[in-house]
Amino acid sequence: MAHIQVPEGVPGIRSLVMFRPETGQYLYELAQVLLRGESPLSEAERELIAAYVSSHNDCVFCMSSHAAAARYLFKDKKQLVDFVLTDYQSAPISNKLKALLNIAGKVQVNGKNVLPEDVEEARRQGAIDRDIHDTVLLAATFSMFNRYVDGLASFTPTDPQAYEEMGVRLGEKGYALPHNS
Amino acid sequence: MAHIQVPEGVPGIRSLVMFRPETGQYLYELAQVLLRGESPLSEAERELIAAYVSSHNDCVFCMSSHAAAARYLFKDKKQLVDFVLTDYQSAPISNKLKALLNIAGKVQVNGKNVLPEDVEEARRQGAIDRDIHDTVLLAATFSMFNRYVDGLASFTPTDPQAYEEMGVRLGEKGYALPHNS
Repeated sequence: MAHIQVPEGVPGIRSLVMFRPETGQYLYELAQVLLRGESPLSEAERELIAAYVSSHNDCVFCMSSHAAAARYLFKDKKQLVDFVLTDYQSAPISNKLKALLNIAGKVQVNGKNVLPEDVEEARRQGAIDRDIHDTVLLAATFSMFNRYVDGLASFTPTDPQAYEEMGVRLGEKGYALPHNS
Repeated sequence: MAHIQVPEGVPGIRSLVMFRPETGQYLYELAQVLLRGESPLSEAERELIAAYVSSHNDCVFCMSSHAAAARYLFKDKKQLVDFVLTDYQSAPISNKLKALLNIAGKVQVNGKNVLPEDVEEARRQGAIDRDIHDTVLLAATFSMFNRYVDGLASFTPTDPQAYEEMGVRLGEKGYALPHNS
């Protein structure tokens, strides 16, 4: 049961933004522009970074829902997602994405852990300023969402089917504020 | 020097939202409603929680600027701020605020660390759902801001006077998006 009185049966962050839409609207608008707006990173790559950071924060709701969204968006390469979450260094992804996941993993612990050599390596692999910016902000933003969701003990479904449906919705419709009605 | 090319000499998060105002606008709007909108917590208490979390994340820019804002808002009780940042359990603050700082400190590490007994203790000291919600979201939000600011190595002034001026501006004007002009 959640630590505060939120709508029953509504999973994760949706129940929290229904409790307090005044802050929730900006959380959803931030997610929409960060994960679906213009970026050198594909939507699938951004969902993968979100799932990776959530996995390191041990946030089951965010990890499962964003991994599902990434699987939906990677289409016929959806097996990449679990490969990256288990061992990204060995996964068949670009060296650029590996260098960015290294940066995201450091931000998840503490922003100060990102060293000039981490950024230089990402640039050597083709990353531009916006790749680096978006990666750091994604890792920072999911460090927030993970804490919001788990800090209030919001409802975390255990049925994999529920997350698969969320993945389709996030992949097709993005981040739209839920309504109280 | 920052890890990406941001406007020179502009401190902390302001330089980052000038680099990418599309995401920055929601970060500022979130800060404004969370720290200045209607809440059972005073603006001074919310700035104090922000400074406390930033201090635990070792984010000098956010800690210094929000501590300065809290000092400005606490007026003749401004010495409370450094007392709380050093040892909040001994500080002359309410037991309710102590119980909320305990929750904020747990969220800073990981949301799952917040236990039902932490929330029960806060309720025993008079906290309602909105106190608990706002505390958790503040701690989560500053876990994001701290990582964004430090993960991109944005400019952190060393002159205490610079933070005192920021404190006055944040106390009087709140969170308004900086302009590129």
